[in-house]
This record gives sequence, structure tokens and C-alpha cells, in this order.
Amino acid sequence: MGEPAGIGGEITVKAWLMRHGKNLPAFVVLADPDRLRAEAESLGQRVPVQVIDSLDQVDDLFETALPVLPVHTKDPVEAGLLNAFNAGAVLESIQTAVRLARDGQVAGIVTNPIHKGILYEAGFKHPGHTEYLADLCGIDHDPVMMLMAQDLKVVPLTVHIPLKDVPQAVTADLLHDKIRVTVRAMQQDFGIAVPRVAVAGLNPHAGEGGSIGSEDLDVIAPALDELRAEGYVIAGPLPADTMFHEMAREEYDIALCMYHDQALIPVKTLDFHGGVNVTLGLPIVRTSPDHGTALNIAGKGVARPDSLMAAILAAQKIASHRNPVT
Amino acid sequence: MGEPAGIGGEITVKAWLMRHGKNLPAFVVLADPDRLRAEAESLGQRVPVQVIDSLDQVDDLFETALPVLPVHTKDPVEAGLLNAFNAGAVLESIQTAVRLARDGQVAGIVTNPIHKGILYEAGFKHPGHTEYLADLCGIDHDPVMMLMAQDLKVVPLTVHIPLKDVPQAVTADLLHDKIRVTVRAMQQDFGIAVPRVAVAGLNPHAGEGGSIGSEDLDVIAPALDELRAEGYVIAGPLPADTMFHEMAREEYDIALCMYHDQALIPVKTLDFHGGVNVTLGLPIVRTSPDHGTALNIAGKGVARPDSLMAAILAAQKIASHRNPVT
Repeated sequence: MGEPAGIGGEITVKAWLMRHGKNLPAFVVLADPDRLRAEAESLGQRVPVQVIDSLDQVDDLFETALPVLPVHTKDPVEAGLLNAFNAGAVLESIQTAVRLARDGQVAGIVTNPIHKGILYEAGFKHPGHTEYLADLCGIDHDPVMMLMAQDLKVVPLTVHIPLKDVPQAVTADLLHDKIRVTVRAMQQDFGIAVPRVAVAGLNPHAGEGGSIGSEDLDVIAPALDELRAEGYVIAGPLPADTMFHEMAREEYDIALCMYHDQALIPVKTLDFHGGVNVTLGLPIVRTSPDHGTALNIAGKGVARPDSLMAAILAAQKIASHRNPVT
Repeated sequence: MGEPAGIGGEITVKAWLMRHGKNLPAFVVLADPDRLRAEAESLGQRVPVQVIDSLDQVDDLFETALPVLPVHTKDPVEAGLLNAFNAGAVLESIQTAVRLARDGQVAGIVTNPIHKGILYEAGFKHPGHTEYLADLCGIDHDPVMMLMAQDLKVVPLTVHIPLKDVPQAVTADLLHDKIRVTVRAMQQDFGIAVPRVAVAGLNPHAGEGGSIGSEDLDVIAPALDELRAEGYVIAGPLPADTMFHEMAREEYDIALCMYHDQALIPVKTLDFHGGVNVTLGLPIVRTSPDHGTALNIAGKGVARPDSLMAAILAAQKIASHRNPVT
């Protein structure tokens, strides 16, 4: 579902309409069927929204109808208008999706964007979507956020913290934790036997041998050396500005960046519409579009489903690696 | 000349060889003619290196020969090997170039990369190439470094400082100074009557209304408001990660970023080989390739002249805007 007043319903309906061209796997939507019907109607499209009783029906139905497991909102949804009374339905859809994935009834989950502010108003206590999923999955380590563009995978070491707090947040422990989870996920989720990790430096030119900031030399380099001694294949710390052009991207499977903009600028510059957010280190497969709820364009019919479709395809790909026999 | 042990000579000879295809304007090289002959020979190319007495000869000569104003190195040059005895020649070439430009004998100067370390060994006292040029031009304000890719111009507010020092370096005064110099240069050097400036936020999501760091709200936003009140056309502070995709780039003429990697990642991701460094706010036209001396590949014949050629074309374009009658 995601935030029902955002573009989640619209891009979901659009993704179903484009299921053939993009060769999308069958999916079931956890949302309010009436709301999805209204979304389809306002797009002027015939979309048979079909409430199902059992997930067994999804594969057969998907060709001709959009299968829905109903999650009803308390209030009717108005596009663009947040409503704390509907926060319960948003959370219910996430809980149900996680349960279905943990039970093996679905291969993975794709989460439409939520609006944290309105969830907090309704009493939500988690720092974010991903931490909530980790909690629902019963894991005690932090999962790792990865962003994917067409031929680029990037993990930010730190995410939504002020830039001034980044240097002290870059520690050997955090580097070790994130790189271990990331490398395991590259193997398990993407079938890369020996993943090559490129690590960006914190400072300009990766500190230029210590002359521009000390962290690259004193913190990052020794932390990477320790992992190399364990057999990890790691390049870096590398000057971040020369890591992301076409030839450079061929040298690694995954880039680790020190902070939000260092990681997100290359992804969104290269592939603004088709980027995907993948959560590494969860027991379930989870992807999501890399955009927000886009309340400002909700209900206008102009939202692009590219990122959601890329997220669905990424989830399918990861699931096929995790469970090659199904 | 640039650092004679680097790739400067090689890419200069290659640029002359490609002068027709790229429609390069006539240029004269300030370097050691014997060294340039040797560079051409080792490329297996016939390049008639022609020492000239007067700049009047350049236009006629350029079609058939590479015009050179001799600047002799003290020691013979060995590719890849820095030699402090040759630092004097490097500085002499810069001084002569600036003098010719200030006297109006050349339309502008293009500087090949220098190696600061070896210049410091020889007693060089300036923080960098650009500051040295400012001093030679007798100006007392700091010039502004701009990076150009094919359809992107970016100015970094801070450059070669540790990331931890960036937040306190972002001040209203610095923003005002850099934006004023930048806007004037967009008008004078690029013929943009009312330049649209996009300013990146310091923090992720430009601080998200103050919830991720305070500087965007407390420092950057009010500084930009003051400039808007004077008539400047400025958007921002904007989330840096969504500023650089194709559609976003159409919304502004120049982007101002808060620090090195925020500015350089998009430029080098989009156009690794053809980027150009332009110095704004000098009384003379000055551009340079946006790469270094590349000592590791010097003398191997593999250096790409793309960035130097783009720098020569950019200098021509800027000169034509500054002095439209010539």
C-alpha cells in the first residue's frame, strides 16, 4: 500500500498495466480494492481489480486482473491529503506483507513509499521503514540500505544524519558491519561469488595521503586492511569523484560511500527514474522504489511507475538467487 | 607547459594533431620545443614544431605547424620523473602566459596540470595554481573554480578542505562572494543575461526542514534570500542528490555545491574525459583540463587529450563573449 494519499496506488495500477512489456512477475497488492479501482478509473483505464481469498490464485489471475488482498483504510482517501486515521492500514499492510514473506507464501515484498510524519502522529515509534521491517523480522542488527541504478549498486555507510556528524560516525566497526552484510548479500542475493567492493574516501581525493583530513588514512584504510586480511576483495579508500564514470563502474560490484549525497548523487544522476532501494541483511526479500510519496503530484495521473517496476523486477531477481529451485 | 614530466606535452601534441576534427582555434605552446619534438616522435607522428618570434605568426602557422614560444627546462625531462630543477621553467611558462594575456596578445590561457609538491620543493609559496594566477593578475579576491561537463556547470563553495571542516566553512559571506563572482562570470563569459543559480543543500535532503542538520535552514537559506532580494535568480538550498539528472539540469545555468565531492561527483560521473576547469573572476581568460599530471602514464602514449581540447574550446568561447568584436 504505502501512503494511500501518495502516488503508490497510481504507480501500482500503472505497473500492472505495463506487466507484459516489462515482463513483470505476478504480484498481489495489499491495499484497499475500492481505492485501487478509483485510481484506475481516474487514469481512464480498465483494470479489473480482483479480491482474492488465497495466494494460490495470484499466478492464474495476474494475466487478466490485478489481485488484491484487502487492507481497508479507516477513512476514504483523498489524494495528497495525509490522514492519521489511515496510518493503521499502512502499518497493517506492511505487517501482513512481512508475515506472508516470512511464511514463504510470497517470494518477496515491494514496499511503496510511506510518510513517516503522519505515522509518527499516529504513534509509530520506529526511526524508519527499514528499521520497522527489521523489527517485524525479529533481527537485532541494522539492515543495510542499498541503492541500485542500471549498472551501479551503492551502499551509504551513514544515511539521514547531518553532514557535520558524518566524520565521527565513520568507524572501523561500522565499516566492518556494513561491508560484511553487503558482501554476504552480494553472494546470496545477486549470485556474485567473490564480490568486489569499492570504498569511497571521506575527504576530497580520499584525503590525498593525509594532507586533506586524517580519517581516510587513520580510520578507513586500516579498517579495510583488516577485512582484506580475511579475504575480502576491497579497493579503497578511493577518491569519490572518479569512482562513478562508466569505465570505473566496471571495476567493482558494489560501491560503499561514506554518506548520503556521496552515494545518492551518482545513482540519481545516472538513473533518476529507475533507481531501486534494496534492503540487505533481512531474512526476507525487500525492495522499494527510491522516491517518496510525492503528495504534490498524487491523483494527477502523471506519476511514473519506472522505479516501482524496477523494484519488482529486482525483488524477483533476488528471490531467484536466494531460492533457485522455485 | 604544465609539469613537463607529466602528460601535458603529449596531450598538447595530440590536440594539435586533432585540430581539424575538433575545430580548435590557433594556439601557441609555451614549452621546450625539443621536448615537444620528442613527444611527437615517440607517438610516431610527424609534428613540425616551429619556434616563433612573434605571436603574429601563430594564425598562419597553426595549420601546418605547432607554434612554440620556447621555455627551456634546466634539465632534460624524463617522463614520470619529477625534477625540482625544472620547476623554474614551469613557473616561467605560467608567468609568460599571464603576461601575454594581460597585454591582450593572446585571447586567453589554457594551463596544463602542474605538480604542486615539486614546486613547493623548489620554493613555490602559493596554495595552488589558481591562487598563483590571481597573484600574477594583481587581484586581491579569491577567484572561483568552476567545473564544466557537457551540459553542466558547477562551482564548489569549498574545495580541498577536510569534510569535517566544511560545515563551519559554509558562511553567508562566502556564499555571497562566490555567487556574485559566479553570476557576473555567467553574464560576461557565457553571455547569459539572467543566470539561474541552483544551490545544493549541505545536509541530506537539504536538511529536510531542519530535521537533518541546521545549516541549510539557518545559514544557507537566509543568505540566498538576501541575494534574491537584490534580484539574483536562485533556487535552493535543494537536495543535492536530485539536482543533477537530465531534466533537473535544464532548470539552471550553474549549480553551486557546498563541497568538493558534491560538485565533482556529478561532473566526473557524467563526463569523465571531457571535463574542464574554468577560473571565474580573473581579468584574463583561463581554463585547464580537469585532470592531474598523470605521472603514472606519462610517456606511454595513452593519455587522452579530450579534456585539454575541451579546455581550449571553452577558452575560445569565453574569450568571444568577453571581446565579441575580435
